[in-house]
Amino acid sequence: MSNDEGVRVSVLGLGEMGRALAAALVDAGHHVTVWNRTPGRGATLAERGAVVVDGAREAVTASDLVVVCLLGHDSVREVLDPVAAQLGGRTVVNLTTTTPEQARESARWAAEHGIGYLDGGIMAVPPMIGQPGSTVLYSGSREVFDRYRPVLDLWGESAFHGEDAGLACLYDLALLAGMYVMFAGFAQGVAMVRPTGMSATEFAGMAAPWLSAMTTGFAGYASVVDGGDYAVPGQQSLNFSDLGYLVEATREQGVDTGLISAVQSLIRRQIDAGHGDEGFIRIVESLRAAG
Amino acid sequence: MSNDEGVRVSVLGLGEMGRALAAALVDAGHHVTVWNRTPGRGATLAERGAVVVDGAREAVTASDLVVVCLLGHDSVREVLDPVAAQLGGRTVVNLTTTTPEQARESARWAAEHGIGYLDGGIMAVPPMIGQPGSTVLYSGSREVFDRYRPVLDLWGESAFHGEDAGLACLYDLALLAGMYVMFAGFAQGVAMVRPTGMSATEFAGMAAPWLSAMTTGFAGYASVVDGGDYAVPGQQSLNFSDLGYLVEATREQGVDTGLISAVQSLIRRQIDAGHGDEGFIRIVESLRAAG
Repeated sequence: MSNDEGVRVSVLGLGEMGRALAAALVDAGHHVTVWNRTPGRGATLAERGAVVVDGAREAVTASDLVVVCLLGHDSVREVLDPVAAQLGGRTVVNLTTTTPEQARESARWAAEHGIGYLDGGIMAVPPMIGQPGSTVLYSGSREVFDRYRPVLDLWGESAFHGEDAGLACLYDLALLAGMYVMFAGFAQGVAMVRPTGMSATEFAGMAAPWLSAMTTGFAGYASVVDGGDYAVPGQQSLNFSDLGYLVEATREQGVDTGLISAVQSLIRRQIDAGHGDEGFIRIVESLRAAG
Repeated sequence: MSNDEGVRVSVLGLGEMGRALAAALVDAGHHVTVWNRTPGRGATLAERGAVVVDGAREAVTASDLVVVCLLGHDSVREVLDPVAAQLGGRTVVNLTTTTPEQARESARWAAEHGIGYLDGGIMAVPPMIGQPGSTVLYSGSREVFDRYRPVLDLWGESAFHGEDAGLACLYDLALLAGMYVMFAGFAQGVAMVRPTGMSATEFAGMAAPWLSAMTTGFAGYASVVDGGDYAVPGQQSLNFSDLGYLVEATREQGVDTGLISAVQSLIRRQIDAGHGDEGFIRIVESLRAAG
């Protein structure tokens, strides 16, 4: 690949994220063809220099590199299955959010049809694409990753996590799980303080720096988990972290206790198993204990 | 209060936090008396210049300002009730973590005995006391807050939130709820990635900057909540945030789905009520909907 001459890239799927990905490619001087099932989404990209086509087959045959950013695994299969023959010998980079097993299924399908395959998970919201702080996790074909690295790097920091095509999605989802759970915790705080007349904005002004500062605690928790001994000294114990007063205060405020009780349940399962004197992060064992 | 001469302050409760609070006072040149129910906790403070006493009564009568940092509301009552007469005319700053209602109960008790009362919630871990980033929330007597402000400021940024003594605890607990929920989300991510061979430390290295960056989204969510219209354009919808793939991937990894399902339940209750096209932060309404 010679970056100087520009690469022929097609983007399938022009939701907000697909448009951001395509725009970064166009702006870098690549030859970009775009397609979306529902027409009308490519107007701004066309103005910037992208070629908008009406069919997935036309889009696929226009480029060696086909970037897929659709609405889930089902839509990936619906769009790609009919053009499998045309994709043979080309490369698919699938940035659609799917489960790890679905990503592996797409990788097997690609291998069967002689299609190069790289799966990706985007750790950014659309406006962050191409900006500092945007990271895209990849797994699948190392050869594809290396060959197209200059293109991939246009979207953010590119990180390759292994030949198992499911890993990028898995790590993406593990980070998204952390995000949605954190957002839910923020919402719980908002619900608790609003009856006192504090605005959500004032609460956000306290919660954002507080939670940001508390993320520095992850490294310490992680070293306990990796060390394999939840009883190492210097930790806040599970007994100390029972959250009884927090559940009670949640109820006092007339706020639903389902979320905080789910957290307390992770703690209590370890206390009930006799580990109350060990560190808080032993809750990882409650999460791993699923049948 | 003349800060130059040093203030007579007693600290009841020498857990890790109590010791950090007392140390900051000693180091600033105040005349500090300390007491702990279980003896032996004051040795280091004595070396620094604090007076260690054997009884709560002795501690209380040594100072006009009595700082209380015990193990919950029950221990506050057990320690303070017998010395109520001695506390008359003095001031209690109660930094024990309790529910808001318990803080109000202590404030009423203090008023009945002619004791000045300020309640506080510490937004810091003990090593942060007196360091940048430490904030202590206060509510109760404004007069006490203003009078002892130079002392309070030794522990961190002091923020007064109103005459209702329960507010500091409530805001403290709302922020702690956010923290514990976030830590649980981090643990869920660790549990998801560990079977692939990724260390918790490597995951923490991705999750800490990611979640820290995502806290910048709180302000936008808050403005939607404060605006009172969850349907304003430009938001990620509840339908888009259904989390079905996330619950499925959690199950695929053999990880307990209780936590992520609790979050999904907040989302689904709003979708089921017909609000699927509105913004994600409408989950605040699920939390407020408790009976």
